[in-house]
This record gives sequence, C-alpha cells and structure tokens, in this order.
Amino acid sequence: MLKKLLATAILLSGATCWADTKNDIEALKNASSESQLAYEVVASLTREVGPRIAGSEGDKKAVLWAEDKLRSLGFDKVYKQPVRVRNWSRGLADANIIKPFEHKLVVTALGGSVATPEAGITAKVIMVDSLEDLKTRSVDEIKGNIVFINKRMERDRAGKGYGPVVIGRSRGAIEAAMLEAQAVIIRSVGTDQSRFAHTGAMQYSPDVEKIPAGALSNADADTLEYMFSQEAPVKMHLNVQAKEHGWQTSYNVIGEITGTEKPEEIVLIGAHLDSWDEGTGALDDGAGVGIVTAAATLIKETLGATKRTIRVVLYANEEFGLIGAKEYAKANEQELGQIIVAAESDFGAGQIYQLDTRFAPAALPFVKELMQHLAPLGIEEGTNTATGGPDISMLPAKGVPVVSLRQDGTHYFDYHHTPNDTLDKIAPEDIQQNQTAYAIFTYLMANSDVDPRPAPALLK
Amino acid sequence: MLKKLLATAILLSGATCWADTKNDIEALKNASSESQLAYEVVASLTREVGPRIAGSEGDKKAVLWAEDKLRSLGFDKVYKQPVRVRNWSRGLADANIIKPFEHKLVVTALGGSVATPEAGITAKVIMVDSLEDLKTRSVDEIKGNIVFINKRMERDRAGKGYGPVVIGRSRGAIEAAMLEAQAVIIRSVGTDQSRFAHTGAMQYSPDVEKIPAGALSNADADTLEYMFSQEAPVKMHLNVQAKEHGWQTSYNVIGEITGTEKPEEIVLIGAHLDSWDEGTGALDDGAGVGIVTAAATLIKETLGATKRTIRVVLYANEEFGLIGAKEYAKANEQELGQIIVAAESDFGAGQIYQLDTRFAPAALPFVKELMQHLAPLGIEEGTNTATGGPDISMLPAKGVPVVSLRQDGTHYFDYHHTPNDTLDKIAPEDIQQNQTAYAIFTYLMANSDVDPRPAPALLK
Repeated sequence: MLKKLLATAILLSGATCWADTKNDIEALKNASSESQLAYEVVASLTREVGPRIAGSEGDKKAVLWAEDKLRSLGFDKVYKQPVRVRNWSRGLADANIIKPFEHKLVVTALGGSVATPEAGITAKVIMVDSLEDLKTRSVDEIKGNIVFINKRMERDRAGKGYGPVVIGRSRGAIEAAMLEAQAVIIRSVGTDQSRFAHTGAMQYSPDVEKIPAGALSNADADTLEYMFSQEAPVKMHLNVQAKEHGWQTSYNVIGEITGTEKPEEIVLIGAHLDSWDEGTGALDDGAGVGIVTAAATLIKETLGATKRTIRVVLYANEEFGLIGAKEYAKANEQELGQIIVAAESDFGAGQIYQLDTRFAPAALPFVKELMQHLAPLGIEEGTNTATGGPDISMLPAKGVPVVSLRQDGTHYFDYHHTPNDTLDKIAPEDIQQNQTAYAIFTYLMANSDVDPRPAPALLK
Repeated sequence: MLKKLLATAILLSGATCWADTKNDIEALKNASSESQLAYEVVASLTREVGPRIAGSEGDKKAVLWAEDKLRSLGFDKVYKQPVRVRNWSRGLADANIIKPFEHKLVVTALGGSVATPEAGITAKVIMVDSLEDLKTRSVDEIKGNIVFINKRMERDRAGKGYGPVVIGRSRGAIEAAMLEAQAVIIRSVGTDQSRFAHTGAMQYSPDVEKIPAGALSNADADTLEYMFSQEAPVKMHLNVQAKEHGWQTSYNVIGEITGTEKPEEIVLIGAHLDSWDEGTGALDDGAGVGIVTAAATLIKETLGATKRTIRVVLYANEEFGLIGAKEYAKANEQELGQIIVAAESDFGAGQIYQLDTRFAPAALPFVKELMQHLAPLGIEEGTNTATGGPDISMLPAKGVPVVSLRQDGTHYFDYHHTPNDTLDKIAPEDIQQNQTAYAIFTYLMANSDVDPRPAPALLK
C-alpha cells in the first residue's frame, strides 16, 4: 500500500516532467525503429575483427576497433583501462574411440586446458553421469583412466539448464585429477545437436595435478555413450595440443556521454569485448556490444546528452573469469559509489521479456515508471533480486544497484562457445528490440533524479 | 475410363486374394509398428563403422558390416560385386581473407578436387552470382584469380532447390579454369546456417587445367560477400590439401530373399553404402540402408518369402558419380529385364508423402492397389513419371520400371555432405514410417503377378 501511494505521489509530482519524458521516449522509440545500429555494430565487429580471445591478435584488433567505433559514434570521452590477461591457444584436439569400435569424435579443448603429451594418451574411458557422480567414485576405479562426464543440458528460456551442467566443465578436471585420472572429457554444455563441441573456461586447483580437459559435441557424446552398451572396456586415444603463451595486456574500452547536470553520476551499461576463438563471438558477446553501444548512441543523437553520464564499458576477458570486470571494480573502487545503476547485456540477442532490478526500497516506485515504457515492448516486471550480468555481478555486494533486462535464451546455448556463434544467428528484429529497451531504460535512469542506491544485500 | 474399368476388373477378380493381401498388410504394419529395425541398422552402421568414403578403410569395414548384417538378418543369399573406385582424401583446407579485413573462413574441399601448392595460393577473389554469370565473364577479368560462386540454395520439400545450385559445384572448376582462374570456391549447396561447409562431387574436363575447388559454409559465404561491400580488391589465401590415392576395390553388397514361385523375377530395393568422410553418413545414406534392409527383413519375418525374389542392393561409391550403380547395370546387363520394379531410398529419413511410378500403362491400375495400402501412412498418389533414386536412374532407359517413394526433404540439405550428418538427425518415428511404406510396397510388388514392364520411355 505504501508502495502504491509512493508511486502515485511520484506520478503526480512529476506530471509535467512525465509528459516531457513520454515525448522523449516516443522520439527514442521512433529513432530506434528506424535504426539497425546494434546489428551494424555487431556485424562490423564480427566481420572486420572476428574471433578475439583474450591476449590474441584478434583481441588487440578488437580494442582498436572499439575505440574507433565509440569515437566515430560521437562518445565524448573514449579511453581504455589496462587488464593483464593470460593468452591461451586451443591448438588441435583429437579424440578417437579405439574399442569397441573405432570412431573419430569431434572434440575441443576446454579453455585453459593443459596439453596431453605430443603423441596423445590412450586409456580406458570411465563414464559418469555428473560431477556429483564422479565424486562418489574411487581412486581404484578412476586412476590412469579418462573420465567422461555425460550430463546433458536442458533447454530453458532463462538458461536455467546451464548452472547444473557447467559445474562439470569448470570443476571436472579438478575432481578427476583428485582421483588420479589422466584426462577428463565432458558432454558439451549446449542444447543443440549440431556437431560442434562447446568450449568454455575450466579451472585447476593448485593442490592437484593439471590434467587435459575437452568437450565432445552432443552427437559425439551420444556415440561414446553408445559404446558403453557394448563389451567393456571402452578405450580412447585423446590428443589435446592447447598452449599457454604467457601474459599480455588487454583493455577494458570505455566510452562516455558526459552528463549535463550531474556528470559525476554514472549510468553504466556494459558488455564484453572478448570472445572465444572458434566462432566470431556474435551472440557472445558482440550482440551485447552492439546493444549497449547503440542504446547510448541513439539517446545522444535523438535527445542529446542526459543529466547524468552514460558510460558504456566493453569489458576485457570475460571468458576466462571476468578478468576485465574484476580489474574495473578494483581500478574504480573509489568511484563505484557514483554508479547509479549498472546493466550488462551478455546473453545473446533474443528479445527481452523481463526487467529485474536490485534497487533500494525507496526507489521501487520508479520501477513502475520504467515498466510503463518497457511494457509495450513485451517486457514484464520481474523481481527486485537481480544480480546483473556476469561482468557486473560483483557490484551489488558493493552497494551498486543493478538491473537484468532478461533476454530469451531459448536458443542461446545452441551456439554458445562454438564455431557456430556467428552473425547470422542474430535476428535483426530481435536485437532491435534490445536496442530500444536499453535506450529507454538508460535514458530514464540517466535523465531522472531517481536514486536506487544502495543496492539491497544479496539474499543468501 | 478404360483405366477405371481395368481397376474395377482387377479388384473384382482378386476379391479373395485381396482379402488375404489385406490381412498380410495388416500383419506387416503391426510388425513394423513394433520394430525400430531401420533405425537400429543405421545406428549400427553409423556408430560401428562411421564415415566410409569410397576406397577408404571405413568403406572396407562397411562392406564387411553389410555382409554380416544381411546374413545375420536372415537373407538367404548374400554376395558382393566388385567395383573399381578412386580413393580420394580431403586433407586440411584453409581459406583466409587477407583484404579488406583478415578473416578465417570455414572451407572444405569439393570431392575430387586437386590440391593447391603446399603453401597455398594468394589471389584476388572475383564474386559471381552463379555458374551462368561466370560464363559471361572474360579471361581478362578472371585470369589468375579465385572465383567465388555465390549462389544460395532454396529450401523445398522435394529438394527442388538442389539442381539449379549444384551445377555450380559440379562444373564450377571447369568453367573457372576455362577462364584461367587459379581456383574456385562456392557457397555451400545447403539450406542451413550451421557453420559447416557442404562437400560433394565435382568434375574436371580433360580439355582444361584442373584447379582446386572448395565450398564455404553459408555463414562464411555471407562474410566473404560482405567484404565486397568494402574497398576492392578482396584478397584471399587458399590452401587445399586433397589427395588422390589411386584405385581400390569396393563392392556392391547384395542380399536376397529368394522367391518361392518366380525366383527369377526380382523386386529390387536399394540404397548406397558409401558416404562422405566428414559426417557418419546417417541421412546420406545410412537411412536408406536401414529402410530397405528393414523392409525386406520385416516381410520375411512376418510373412515369409514372397513369390518373387526381393533383392536388396547396397551400392558402392554413389557419391563420386554412381560408380557402383553403373557397375551393377553393366555386370547384370543380361538380367535387367527380370527386374519387375526398382526403388531406391536416398533422400534422408523424412516421411514419405508421395508415390511416383514409371509403370507400363497396363499396370497402372495396380497403382490404385498400392495406394490403398499406402494412403493410410499419409502418402499421396503422384505421377507416372518417376525416375527413381540416383543409383537406379539409369534403369528406366533400359525398360526397368521404377518408383519413387518421395520423402520430405525439407531439412535434408541442412545436413547433407557435412560433418553434421549424424544419427541424431533421424527421427525414429519418421524412419519407421519409411520402413513400413517400403515393406508394404515391396510386399505388394513381390507377392503379386502384376507386371509393370517395360517402363515407358523418359519424356524429354
């Protein structure tokens, strides 16, 4: 009831202002409906730069591209923030079943994996259902063998199938090495049946040996699974020629449209600039780069600079563990309190269907105003428990309010981290809806006095 | 009217017989509805043998597999017919755009292509819309360059989009070499946007130089096409390391269920045993192998041997130009007149929606009987201008009647000739419908006295 009263009070007090806002939003929507800027930006990035794994030549080109792009679009401040990154290269990987039937499988190294010896390894394969299942096995059973974690990811609009499966990718090598396995391979963390293996970051622990880690395409995981219905044992030859190339400098690239009245107050919209090496990083995360860049540009071009500063942050090296984002939070530690709100687009280019926030209670009525303008785009009001995208996920704990403009991820994990993550997977009308929604959200936050700080504590 | 009278006459004269037939068909349908034999056969072939390009180790294994499979399923005669085949291997292929933007493309060699020099070639790329367009170009324009044939295939249930585009694949190297090009690359002959290049056979002419030929995935063809919107010229480095390994012996593998009354009369149902090397040949043509093998087996197991002989022919080396089929027609030349009808399943595993025939006019009323039993499976009556599948396409000219049990090929060319042609692309319920339809058709032809010979001449 208090909520409702507050909302009414705000709407009444801002009557004139609200009419202006409505006109502004209409203008912004019209401009966005006539612009494919988000698509053009991701098209330029994916075609002219292409793959850009952290520390690679592609990554360096991407940084130059981003600076150029933000400048040429008229951001008034464009600068970069150095980030130390490990450069890792995939190399070739081979997996051949030797018994019970010879069969060549499609495999790719997990990101950060060590290599096998040059001639590869030959070993018995032990299939487990999941990481949890692996933990129940004994050293006697696993020692000297290759562990195959055969857990399938479920399709879901919100990507809820990812978490329960990705743990096997990130921690499989640690758990398998604790049981003295020679290597670990996983069924790809992906929802497709295309014959692409899905890569992604994996971890080692200083306490156990580093063993090679790879992923099989779902089709090939099916084949390997079938072999276990035949006479035991299943034997495999595995060769992974991944390589570390040491440390490199990459950059968070930042573009600002300086605020006219409160330039020190920041509305941060971000995405990550790096990608995996096999696709062209269109959905992950060229789309996000296009969306936030286009949103800020459309505001400036249509309505001019806002009261607060709009800051677009294109993070370095998200894929290897939010390296650029952590550096951003550290380098800007003193300034985090000036971020009014942060949002990141990093879930492809599917249409946004829900707005989640993490606002201080006093600012919750403003969510109604946001919703009034976002609802016509097919967006519903969600909860006040947003955690933001990966690169801003550490900010709420520091009191920074975040929102999640939740995208339809039904098909995101069909392409995620594969060679198949290319521009043609983006529907122009879908990314345009994202561009419009980000433009509206960013404008409303950057041109009002609402203050959602501090973000309420994360519920445990 | 004559047609109608004849049909009525046949139905009346065969009243008792017809009731028996109806019971037999019911029994066959019931047996098929409880069997996944076609699926199991293709599963066995694709998992236990895998890729089987003509003359390769996989091909040799496939021949052994086929003999074993037909014997173990109870075919009373199993034999093979030697076929001389060229063994060609793909090797690695690389295509990198150098200008206007560096970009690595997904490319694969066309089947039969020669290699580039070991270091590859670097040349300007000339984009043409089609083979017809290429023919209009001058030596001045093309000489020393790489030709890019950028024609997109249209999706169609009957696969009608294939013909107009595949001509660029088969004859592109000849036409480009006539204009003194260094190499030719084509947009894949495929309807998907997965990042797989579609291979397939290509031809050379003795009169012009053999130049290397490759295909780009549709996504990569999009990227290359984009480069032409930038400053000219577009430059590429292309490396194709395909290789000829000389002649090998492969085999048509044949299984028969000998007829009880007219064993010399043959109902031939076929498919091809070879596949391309990158996928596991599930749709092309493991599915066909499964369908015809299962159909014959179900008849034998459910109703016993038929009056006429059912002959299953698993052809060698279809992919390089119907080599096994041509050998079959030659080696069995004296016997072709004893083939009552031939059918081949070689269009994936989509449901059959239409029956086309090429029957002598006197046998056309029998099409009504076939349809009576096939219609409940969702199959419609087509025309009497069938040409049969590729491996039987030379038979009508020799008077052999053929039918086409036309499959839904809407998605066939999404996977055709790519690494993505794997078992998981086959829906068990779809291949089961094929199995049922082939069993019914084969039984009706093999257990009746209908004689559709000779096939009417092909209309020009």
